[in-house]
Amino acid sequence: MCDRPKNTNVRLRLPAVCIVWQTAMIILFGVFIRYNEEADTHWVEYKKEKNIPSDIENDFYFRYPSFQDVHVMIFVGFGFLMTFLKRYSFGAVGFNFLIAAFGLQWALLMQGWFHSLDYTDGKIKIGVESLINADFCVAGCLIAYGAVLGKVSPVQLMVMTLFGITLFAVEEYIILNLIHARDAGGSMVIHTFGGYYGLSISWMLYRPNLDQSSRLQGSVYHSDLFAMIGTLFLWMFWPSFNSAITDHGDGQHRAAINTYLALASTVLTTVAVSSLFQKHGKLDMVHIQNSTLAGGVAVGTAAEFMLMPYGSLIVGFCCGILSTLGYIYITPFMEKYMKIQDTCGIHNLHAMPGVIGGIVGAITAAAASESVYGAEGLINTFDFEGEFENMVPTKQGGHQAAGLCVAILFGIGGGILVGFILRLPIWGDAADDNCFDDEPYWELPEDEESIPPVLQYNNHAINKDV
Amino acid sequence: MCDRPKNTNVRLRLPAVCIVWQTAMIILFGVFIRYNEEADTHWVEYKKEKNIPSDIENDFYFRYPSFQDVHVMIFVGFGFLMTFLKRYSFGAVGFNFLIAAFGLQWALLMQGWFHSLDYTDGKIKIGVESLINADFCVAGCLIAYGAVLGKVSPVQLMVMTLFGITLFAVEEYIILNLIHARDAGGSMVIHTFGGYYGLSISWMLYRPNLDQSSRLQGSVYHSDLFAMIGTLFLWMFWPSFNSAITDHGDGQHRAAINTYLALASTVLTTVAVSSLFQKHGKLDMVHIQNSTLAGGVAVGTAAEFMLMPYGSLIVGFCCGILSTLGYIYITPFMEKYMKIQDTCGIHNLHAMPGVIGGIVGAITAAAASESVYGAEGLINTFDFEGEFENMVPTKQGGHQAAGLCVAILFGIGGGILVGFILRLPIWGDAADDNCFDDEPYWELPEDEESIPPVLQYNNHAINKDV
Amino acid sequence: MCDRPKNTNVRLRLPAVCIVWQTAMIILFGVFIRYNEEADTHWVEYKKEKNIPSDIENDFYFRYPSFQDVHVMIFVGFGFLMTFLKRYSFGAVGFNFLIAAFGLQWALLMQGWFHSLDYTDGKIKIGVESLINADFCVAGCLIAYGAVLGKVSPVQLMVMTLFGITLFAVEEYIILNLIHARDAGGSMVIHTFGGYYGLSISWMLYRPNLDQSSRLQGSVYHSDLFAMIGTLFLWMFWPSFNSAITDHGDGQHRAAINTYLALASTVLTTVAVSSLFQKHGKLDMVHIQNSTLAGGVAVGTAAEFMLMPYGSLIVGFCCGILSTLGYIYITPFMEKYMKIQDTCGIHNLHAMPGVIGGIVGAITAAAASESVYGAEGLINTFDFEGEFENMVPTKQGGHQAAGLCVAILFGIGGGILVGFILRLPIWGDAADDNCFDDEPYWELPEDEESIPPVLQYNNHAINKDV
Repeated sequence: MCDRPKNTNVRLRLPAVCIVWQTAMIILFGVFIRYNEEADTHWVEYKKEKNIPSDIENDFYFRYPSFQDVHVMIFVGFGFLMTFLKRYSFGAVGFNFLIAAFGLQWALLMQGWFHSLDYTDGKIKIGVESLINADFCVAGCLIAYGAVLGKVSPVQLMVMTLFGITLFAVEEYIILNLIHARDAGGSMVIHTFGGYYGLSISWMLYRPNLDQSSRLQGSVYHSDLFAMIGTLFLWMFWPSFNSAITDHGDGQHRAAINTYLALASTVLTTVAVSSLFQKHGKLDMVHIQNSTLAGGVAVGTAAEFMLMPYGSLIVGFCCGILSTLGYIYITPFMEKYMKIQDTCGIHNLHAMPGVIGGIVGAITAAAASESVYGAEGLINTFDFEGEFENMVPTKQGGHQAAGLCVAILFGIGGGILVGFILRLPIWGDAADDNCFDDEPYWELPEDEESIPPVLQYNNHAINKDV
Repeated sequence: MCDRPKNTNVRLRLPAVCIVWQTAMIILFGVFIRYNEEADTHWVEYKKEKNIPSDIENDFYFRYPSFQDVHVMIFVGFGFLMTFLKRYSFGAVGFNFLIAAFGLQWALLMQGWFHSLDYTDGKIKIGVESLINADFCVAGCLIAYGAVLGKVSPVQLMVMTLFGITLFAVEEYIILNLIHARDAGGSMVIHTFGGYYGLSISWMLYRPNLDQSSRLQGSVYHSDLFAMIGTLFLWMFWPSFNSAITDHGDGQHRAAINTYLALASTVLTTVAVSSLFQKHGKLDMVHIQNSTLAGGVAVGTAAEFMLMPYGSLIVGFCCGILSTLGYIYITPFMEKYMKIQDTCGIHNLHAMPGVIGGIVGAITAAAASESVYGAEGLINTFDFEGEFENMVPTKQGGHQAAGLCVAILFGIGGGILVGFILRLPIWGDAADDNCFDDEPYWELPEDEESIPPVLQYNNHAINKDV
Repeated sequence: MCDRPKNTNVRLRLPAVCIVWQTAMIILFGVFIRYNEEADTHWVEYKKEKNIPSDIENDFYFRYPSFQDVHVMIFVGFGFLMTFLKRYSFGAVGFNFLIAAFGLQWALLMQGWFHSLDYTDGKIKIGVESLINADFCVAGCLIAYGAVLGKVSPVQLMVMTLFGITLFAVEEYIILNLIHARDAGGSMVIHTFGGYYGLSISWMLYRPNLDQSSRLQGSVYHSDLFAMIGTLFLWMFWPSFNSAITDHGDGQHRAAINTYLALASTVLTTVAVSSLFQKHGKLDMVHIQNSTLAGGVAVGTAAEFMLMPYGSLIVGFCCGILSTLGYIYITPFMEKYMKIQDTCGIHNLHAMPGVIGGIVGAITAAAASESVYGAEGLINTFDFEGEFENMVPTKQGGHQAAGLCVAILFGIGGGILVGFILRLPIWGDAADDNCFDDEPYWELPEDEESIPPVLQYNNHAINKDV
């Protein structure tokens, strides 16, 4: 039945990778990571010194609710969104859990070295914003997981995450710090990068005989409902995602409103296109589960700008249409002609809307004016300070576009590189006819049908009215 | 088998409605909706001008955590609560998603025209409180959806939502602004209105032969568990619902405490009545899923008042009993004798507890005194300011009662009106023997049983120890 | 088939207990419980009097987001974590709901008498922190429920909760107030106590013939997924649990960071051990569902201290290993040789990690120094004020250890005592061959397989393109 029996036993490899990497994390954290001044017991003194009037000014209270929402998106949102396959739900939610838990530690280090290294003592100082950024960084790798879902081993996923986080931190540094692009919701940095990273890896790991496991590529009624849990938590908390690290005050406020509106608009156009392009006008759960989120991706960069409520609606409107059409036309096309097998359709949910988001961000930035933003507002929103004091909106638009290109290049280049590594025959991935199946990596419970109904109800008789 | 084949194909109608209405939203938002001063980049200047000492005073930080909880209630809470039917879970969570996403946009406009129109420039200025109010407004329509669940087409739902939001905004304006009733948690404005609106529509759409689909009217084991996800998120976040738009400080604090207590009390009496009225004392999941929430509904109006912790417990105590008895006696009675088919029992969960909540609110308001509230507290809590400077508690109690009547009248009158429209034979609703079935409107996956077990486990042999 | 038919009909007993206890709560709340000054309408005056500059300083805004996260952990987290059994999911989530709703009311009273009694008027004054503490108190009893899951009646659970909350409040008062141990995340007070309380009760209720219901002791594919919902919400919100009642500012901030890190580390070592100790290296869902949480338990006491990020990782590292080994070796050992049947393995998830947490707390406290904490930081963190002004870290370490002993003693002693009461043959518990079955206490829906597929799809033909 299977072309070539493969050894999917990861009994030594997976534990070895987990233990070695976790030990490395402990050592590196010991050397490098400390609390920042807002999480350290010296906060009492810091507060006095800086004349901070109250504990409520601690960044914790500005960002912790958003952080928790983002955290839910990472673990429940991404995890359950991928449970739609009838027999890969354990792998979806379980491996998502594993790589996110590893990735966030590595992200704290990688992002710390680039962004929050305290040069006075050589330590990285972390606070709640670092946790959010680590979760963001992880999101990039979880997006990539969507493309290879069901086709890789957990060891491969760990490797993919290690490199993914590393590449992410570098591209993020280049885009945000060197190029000085703004990308609060990560349309470019997270979604474009993560999308192309995953698609390139999937291209490198192309399986010509994947149809051998086609019997497992669909969903069942209840697995689709589990996936809706993921969809809805992503959809509901996306305003927190896009506003989590924007400026205090109006920045967070505006980003949340824009995202809320873009997502609402996407739902209607997704439903419209899904119904229009199906026989009998029936809705397809794949579209409802995925395309309804495209607006949140596409509004990521511009959410903190003065995109205006109607602008957000327009972005969502277009993305719902494009993303759903992507599921209907582009995914099959890519599989057939480009040898890219994209299990979750991340091209339509992340890559393409991410690029749109980058473009929308560039245009919105280029069109910014003092009359709309106010003099101070313009400087604050685009951070035209320090070495970028002389920046102007039109130029900022160019920088945004440059940032988008860097994200695409890092995604494709990094994906091809990592794909090469993942093709080594040492990682314990499954054979073509064993894909999309939890069986190789999970102890599975007996089947539901095997509960003998006679045993379940044989005690009815002994329940008597008192 | 079916009396009269009906055309449930919505391939042109549903996309047309979605695209046209979303386009209308974009145009109206473009003309009318802008950010308010706390979400606009001019916040920096506004802050200085108004001597606001810190970004943390932005309303975003007072209300965003509550907003997110309310958002979860709308999409996961209402959506999953209705997944209990064995074969209508896609419709429950999917159509809930669709109409909520549309409704909140229309609500921002409708409520905006009544409540936050800036007369200097003719624009509606929105912020986080507007988002909460839009979600509230949507809740009224989702309640109504519960009565007609499984019996209407998505196009009908869109029409029902369009009118529902419109009616809601008008009755809310009359009750809160003209009558000056207080209703922070929406016992009257949301639950009473939404409940009677849905029941009246269901009455207008009475299906005498609905028993033809009785095979699909029950739950299965796992669909009941999915519904419990909805129940619990509604239950847990109800304190946020009732406190989301109350006064900063003690108002939000007190509303959360009162709701927490009322809900706890409801659980115990629901369990008691459910067990007492069933053969063998067994609990019924319908009661646990629904009646446990009645206390949150009934405490909605009075939650911000000095109801006192024991007062909240009493309200919850009574509502748990009444709501469960409603499921046991009133729902079958209404179906048999009043021709009201109430799929989710919204009469017992929303309409009746909503009326109780209105009455509790009127009594609590009438009994308010300076000795309990303090002089300033009384004025703040009941907003005895401006043109209502000379209001006194007893009179306020009368206004509350008047508000309740308006909510009932709008619910019944609006429901009958909209029911007439929905009876037009153009909306693509299903035949009687095709109700409670996702099949007419959703592409359904193959059945779970059809996975050949032999294929699932045929690769055991090739896993060898390394 | 069953050795001795047992009467599981709770039709009179369960309603009686619920109604009587809820009535008692109303009376006691009427006599004792009022709002505290931050939730009372006198807040306006209080604010002026105390020169509090803004409503945002109300404790509500410091703690409400954490409270809501804790609330989700109690109801969805604990509730769904226990749904893993194939036919006891209603009992898991439903009885969890019942006893938590009762327990939190009783906890407000018990903890109130010990902690927030206002001696001027003899009233307990509650606010958002009281709600969090009540939820914490309930957590202890829900942990204990895990040990007896599927083997007790709801009436027994109510009794177990009544005594559990009472014992909890006393041991908490002794540990926190008399001994002056610190335990913000409740490693000792909640997890150690709750764990040993449950294990002792399970020991007292030992069922030698429990294997008669072994057919129901496993999971099915989708019940394992429902349990993952519980796992993930516990895992994600644990940082809020451990930081919910710590000091404003750096205290909450640091506790959240430490917990986030400890939990991440636990996931990797759990996966490693689970894979290493299974045939073929396959992962076991039991471990992923439970052991991944052990790090959050073990970091509970020390989370608010300067444990350092790497310290948190080390705690998580060890607990992942120990907890998973516990599931593999200790649980079967305890069942076979110690007559302790621990359905959910609470020994490995709560008792043992709780003890580790107590020890880590003692060591971290004893090692505290002014050079690390700062002079003021040391006093604030350990509350070396008032009568404990002359306390030093090393002595504090001893007090922490003493607190741990008290928690263990209360857990074991209380459990044995309550176990005696629960052995009375009046509570309606199920026979041995009827355990782990929802059938005795719940109206169950017909089985999923019984939907005739022909009925589901018989209307395909009538859907025609328009």
